[in-house]
Amino acid sequence: MDTQQLAEASRDAMWAEDRASQSTGQTVVDVAPGTATLTMTVTATMLNGHHTCHGGFLFTLADSAFAFACNSHNQKAVAQHCSITYLKPAFEGELLTATATECDLSGRSGLYDVAVRNPKGELVAQFRGHSRTIPGQHVEIDT
Amino acid sequence: MDTQQLAEASRDAMWAEDRASQSTGQTVVDVAPGTATLTMTVTATMLNGHHTCHGGFLFTLADSAFAFACNSHNQKAVAQHCSITYLKPAFEGELLTATATECDLSGRSGLYDVAVRNPKGELVAQFRGHSRTIPGQHVEIDT
Amino acid sequence: MDTQQLAEASRDAMWAEDRASQSTGQTVVDVAPGTATLTMTVTATMLNGHHTCHGGFLFTLADSAFAFACNSHNQKAVAQHCSITYLKPAFEGELLTATATECDLSGRSGLYDVAVRNPKGELVAQFRGHSRTIPGQHVEIDT
Amino acid sequence: MDTQQLAEASRDAMWAEDRASQSTGQTVVDVAPGTATLTMTVTATMLNGHHTCHGGFLFTLADSAFAFACNSHNQKAVAQHCSITYLKPAFEGELLTATATECDLSGRSGLYDVAVRNPKGELVAQFRGHSRTIPGQHVEIDT
Repeated sequence: MDTQQLAEASRDAMWAEDRASQSTGQTVVDVAPGTATLTMTVTATMLNGHHTCHGGFLFTLADSAFAFACNSHNQKAVAQHCSITYLKPAFEGELLTATATECDLSGRSGLYDVAVRNPKGELVAQFRGHSRTIPGQHVEIDT
Repeated sequence: MDTQQLAEASRDAMWAEDRASQSTGQTVVDVAPGTATLTMTVTATMLNGHHTCHGGFLFTLADSAFAFACNSHNQKAVAQHCSITYLKPAFEGELLTATATECDLSGRSGLYDVAVRNPKGELVAQFRGHSRTIPGQHVEIDT
Repeated sequence: MDTQQLAEASRDAMWAEDRASQSTGQTVVDVAPGTATLTMTVTATMLNGHHTCHGGFLFTLADSAFAFACNSHNQKAVAQHCSITYLKPAFEGELLTATATECDLSGRSGLYDVAVRNPKGELVAQFRGHSRTIPGQHVEIDT
Repeated sequence: MDTQQLAEASRDAMWAEDRASQSTGQTVVDVAPGTATLTMTVTATMLNGHHTCHGGFLFTLADSAFAFACNSHNQKAVAQHCSITYLKPAFEGELLTATATECDLSGRSGLYDVAVRNPKGELVAQFRGHSRTIPGQHVEIDT
């Protein structure tokens, strides 16, 4: 398998078990080595007291994009520390798109940025995630 | 109303509209000026591909505790920037407790720390939230 | 004055007063609306107990690049919250380059990313800064 | 040696080599397992264009307190990711005090909070640091 095939196989293995991303209506629209793009529609049950999408659900979408990106090399990886900056409110019915890109990968540590955009392409939130690999691979490879 | 009564009235007004905290099964167990404690049980639909609670749901619980704490002074406030550090995995069926405390409140800016603990009292995640007040109050006060 | 001239005039006004950036041997090599590039050589007095550049000096360089970028619109701005991730150690004698770019500017709030690189072009640190404008301009403009 | 003696011996070994903390006029006033308190006076060469202490020097003080705290167990540790929130400006001549406390230490990863206060006891900045141990000890112990 080449690196793109490994990214897709890792995505398939992760997605099958990822109840949280499934139950929040996310879709993995694209994955490649070090990057992933996911979408999610804001539903009524995701709204907070300000009638906008609760920050937790914006974070969940971004965090899933980060997870698919940092696991795209077929090496299991987990989040250590993440931060999010809220730039614009998101509203019920909007389809949000989160794109994760790899800033750095050195040894076991990875750094990823995730931009969350609304249907107009405006930046809703900017997320940064720090990952660390753990033992184990998503798909077995004959070597 | 005294400050404690305002905190409780603000909580009631926020909770009534907070579909996200309701739909994730959260409970506000305590609120006081500058602080709030919420609980949430990890359900099967919150699990990620590692069979532990997805970081997005840990964040959502912490973010809600932060929101109730920073809105406890009857002045509407929104999140600007948040960060979370994952310290231990949380498992299905565990009742998690998030306690938000106010580190600083200067003018319109607030700084809050939230500790998320499992039933053994172990730290699962440590969250830090930056808030900013916006015009509007949760309950009208005759002055 | 056009936006580029304003950026340069703001830089000149800030630099004249910025004893900290001067005393650490920084140079503003480039400024434009929303961006700035600064350099600094790691000296012996910047080393920590591991014989590498103390994180505080890496941060100081990045923070100055952030400051020149967020003040480049001739509107005074200050830092609210910053974070830094250390990716590679920096050594005595290395000329470090920090490049700040504007991710978002909405109302009074700005978000900036700063990459700090060594002479080989390797990423030494990645910084993110949140700014907020305050009353006052760097140079007076006839309107 | 008991844990307090190890903390003091680690401090002595680190301080002897820490040119950055020395050259910025810092003093380690207290160290114990998991905690450290340092002071620094704001000098003219630390001022930025707003005539207040440059954020880089506030960060440097906090980062040093973090370093002495996370190295207090005689196991070498380095910073991975740090964040700082600026709450009040600091002025020339003020003696600042940074107190680092250990929030969590699990395996090789540590989490530390540092409060930077001015002579009135007001919070100037709040810092959070993530450390990771590396091979090596500060002082050799017969075992």
